[in-house]
Amino acid sequence: MKLSELAARIDGEFTGNGDLEITGIAGLTEAVAGDLSFLANSKYAAALAATRASAVIVSRDWAGDSPCAVIRVQAPDRAMALTAELIGTLPKAEVAVGSHPSSVIHPETDIDPTVRIGPLCVVERGAVIQAGTLLVAGCYVGREAVIGRDCVLQPHAVVRERVILGDRVILHEGAVVGGDGFGNYRENGAWKKIPHIGTVEIGADSEIGVNSAVDRARFGKTVVGKGVKVDNLVMIAHNCQIGDHTAMAAQVGISGSTNIGTGVLLAGQAGLAGHLTVGDGAVVGAQAGVTKNVPQATYVTGYPAMPHRKAAQSHANLMRLETWKKRVTLLEAKLAALEERLAADERICD
Amino acid sequence: MKLSELAARIDGEFTGNGDLEITGIAGLTEAVAGDLSFLANSKYAAALAATRASAVIVSRDWAGDSPCAVIRVQAPDRAMALTAELIGTLPKAEVAVGSHPSSVIHPETDIDPTVRIGPLCVVERGAVIQAGTLLVAGCYVGREAVIGRDCVLQPHAVVRERVILGDRVILHEGAVVGGDGFGNYRENGAWKKIPHIGTVEIGADSEIGVNSAVDRARFGKTVVGKGVKVDNLVMIAHNCQIGDHTAMAAQVGISGSTNIGTGVLLAGQAGLAGHLTVGDGAVVGAQAGVTKNVPQATYVTGYPAMPHRKAAQSHANLMRLETWKKRVTLLEAKLAALEERLAADERICD
Amino acid sequence: MKLSELAARIDGEFTGNGDLEITGIAGLTEAVAGDLSFLANSKYAAALAATRASAVIVSRDWAGDSPCAVIRVQAPDRAMALTAELIGTLPKAEVAVGSHPSSVIHPETDIDPTVRIGPLCVVERGAVIQAGTLLVAGCYVGREAVIGRDCVLQPHAVVRERVILGDRVILHEGAVVGGDGFGNYRENGAWKKIPHIGTVEIGADSEIGVNSAVDRARFGKTVVGKGVKVDNLVMIAHNCQIGDHTAMAAQVGISGSTNIGTGVLLAGQAGLAGHLTVGDGAVVGAQAGVTKNVPQATYVTGYPAMPHRKAAQSHANLMRLETWKKRVTLLEAKLAALEERLAADERICD
Repeated sequence: MKLSELAARIDGEFTGNGDLEITGIAGLTEAVAGDLSFLANSKYAAALAATRASAVIVSRDWAGDSPCAVIRVQAPDRAMALTAELIGTLPKAEVAVGSHPSSVIHPETDIDPTVRIGPLCVVERGAVIQAGTLLVAGCYVGREAVIGRDCVLQPHAVVRERVILGDRVILHEGAVVGGDGFGNYRENGAWKKIPHIGTVEIGADSEIGVNSAVDRARFGKTVVGKGVKVDNLVMIAHNCQIGDHTAMAAQVGISGSTNIGTGVLLAGQAGLAGHLTVGDGAVVGAQAGVTKNVPQATYVTGYPAMPHRKAAQSHANLMRLETWKKRVTLLEAKLAALEERLAADERICD
Repeated sequence: MKLSELAARIDGEFTGNGDLEITGIAGLTEAVAGDLSFLANSKYAAALAATRASAVIVSRDWAGDSPCAVIRVQAPDRAMALTAELIGTLPKAEVAVGSHPSSVIHPETDIDPTVRIGPLCVVERGAVIQAGTLLVAGCYVGREAVIGRDCVLQPHAVVRERVILGDRVILHEGAVVGGDGFGNYRENGAWKKIPHIGTVEIGADSEIGVNSAVDRARFGKTVVGKGVKVDNLVMIAHNCQIGDHTAMAAQVGISGSTNIGTGVLLAGQAGLAGHLTVGDGAVVGAQAGVTKNVPQATYVTGYPAMPHRKAAQSHANLMRLETWKKRVTLLEAKLAALEERLAADERICD
Repeated sequence: MKLSELAARIDGEFTGNGDLEITGIAGLTEAVAGDLSFLANSKYAAALAATRASAVIVSRDWAGDSPCAVIRVQAPDRAMALTAELIGTLPKAEVAVGSHPSSVIHPETDIDPTVRIGPLCVVERGAVIQAGTLLVAGCYVGREAVIGRDCVLQPHAVVRERVILGDRVILHEGAVVGGDGFGNYRENGAWKKIPHIGTVEIGADSEIGVNSAVDRARFGKTVVGKGVKVDNLVMIAHNCQIGDHTAMAAQVGISGSTNIGTGVLLAGQAGLAGHLTVGDGAVVGAQAGVTKNVPQATYVTGYPAMPHRKAAQSHANLMRLETWKKRVTLLEAKLAALEERLAADERICD
């Protein structure tokens, strides 16, 4: 694709030779002639200076120099995404419309004729799978589950009984939606299982990452809202409610019945106790341990999680303790000297 | 089911109309007319006041008001579990007795005729599967593995060579029991693999959560006791010994050869170093990092984990450092003033 | 095998009866007559004193007493590994050369005739699998993936499109290589997916643990070097570069575009932010939260991670705050007394 055409299709303005042929996409340091690259983070300005790419996408307000043609865009991330769709060549799993003969599909299911079910899947009685959805391979869909339109279930994804997936939901490899909630009560020193007879509902346009788990509710529903992005190895326990457009990075864990607002960000390995509320637009830092409700639009970090300014201050105080030790020791010495002197004065006075 | 009958079956005493027909179960805020609900945690008393449920299960000592019929029970959690079994309607995976024709079962296995093996499972040579056990779909059972009676292997569960599961064990989706232990030694800067030729034994009535891993021993056995409840995404390394009735929440990680007592609780994301001993009845807080042995019946938190009272005190001290800074600064000022004054006195005296 | 022969084969020197027949391997406390055991860690010297093993492997410089025959070796870990290979009896999955008829293999693939593909696997168009490689069962190999020689894919391992595995790579159960990278941009409050059209390359002799995930690059490659050992439930995000001979324990998480050097050790549950560099030979402690670059050969711990000496000092300071509180309080009292006395002196003087 010519540079000029590409620039037009990603709402960008180019400087350089518009007839330049763009043949690939690569990072600044890996790019070769013909490649388009990106400066998404000004941290990589030095890599831009040294790149062998033929063109680079930068933010409109980027003021630096470039060794190659430039396309200026309002949002480099968006431009990168559009470009990858336009000239990316990653092959996709080929799955024909209908069900692969190796799959085991219960006759009493409601599967739209446009659905594509790859090899070695299982779809149980009463399941509904709507138009355009793709099960790549080795997926399991339990009884009476309802899967919306244009969903993608990557290999080995699991959807248990009565789970509801909205349209365009993506379950990545090994993701399990509707596994049993973790709940037991003690009787004579032994744990007894509390049945979890509720289900899980995942809203449209949400994604659940590789080997992540969303457990079914005790009763009622565990709810993941619309447009929620869940990375790999994340745990969402029974009866959680996750608001729309919330995102959580890998290895986050949310305990049972916790309520997360809309547009919340949970950074990697953050852990949240159960029965909490996290307000809309809150941000929870990486590895933070949330033990109390988080007000809306609040950035919390640390263990136990607290407003970041406070956490940063207490960390700074901790780091300064060596200095404070010296000051206290000095105070003790000076005070001792004063006391000694006064005592001496008194001895003189006596 | 009538309220009076339900109350009798869960050992409860009801107040209200015993002929009331209970048609469902729901949380206090989601319940509608006909539903039974629960007050398991007094935190939700306000939700009880506003519920539209027709009846609610409360603890015998609950003294508050209720807008609907009430069943008083000694243990609400137990009553909730029994009720869910009585009137829950979640459909179960339908698996016929015998092996689904799509499964690959080695002829030299010892599988009880009552066992149900769903589609797309693999059972290798020499495996033993005892009466009443269910493999839902896509499970793998390795050579000479022994699976007890009435076990449930949820979709994609994996049991490797020679692993032993006691009766009524549940492996949730994607759980892997008997994966290779992680052990290597260094030779000329490169890692060399240490073969793990031991196995894993899981006691009766234990559960291993979604996508959790219990690794096989170097030699001998990794042992998970009886009645142990393991949540999702948990890692139990080679040669660990986990005592009976211990429970661990999601994303806990236990390093190799660590010995956990009976009735221990490990909260979410807790991590334990290797070759440690955790005494009976100990409790490890969420995200705690255990680097030393934990005595029995001790509650430890923080990183490095220490008795909770000490951890709480050191946290409180940390939070008070701003105050201490002010006190030290004030001391310095006062001392300087005193010194100045004494110096002035001396000048006067001179 | 006779003790004398075994000692010769593991480059050891024995003391005791060379004709002793060694029939098994076991830990010091579990061993019975006929077993060989190991003292790999001097912490277990008491267990050695009480062992019923017939022989024990110890380090050449071990000076203690032994109740049984002894084989002295330079590296007990290596000797243990060799011995396990020599006399271990764990059965291996039996997979015949060729593809099991239940597997779904695209006709346009390049699979060496020596390759063994077990039941219920999927191999997509254009995949290449080289000589001696084994897919145990239920594995997925995506389009144009290239798997080197003598690799092992344990049950349910997943290799997505265009991923490249070097020779002798082991993917453990449920490991997913080449899942979609986690990247989104915001548009009008909603997340939009950034396509990840790059791939993953895993070097020779590396292992990826049970249910671990290595995500594909945005473009270019996520690279795991040679001889890299990755334990279970680990997350390696898109565009990371992991140097040769690096090892990471269970539940480690590495955010996108982070660059790890060679011979690095990441202990369990450590988390690393994105776009960082960790130098060769660095060591990151368990549960550490790495937020900045780590220089080579540096040992960092804590959150935020810092050089261990500094982290230990700040922890020690924190633990000593009770003492400092007392010292400050005492200073205040003494200073108040001094001030009072001076004031009294002045009153007298007046």
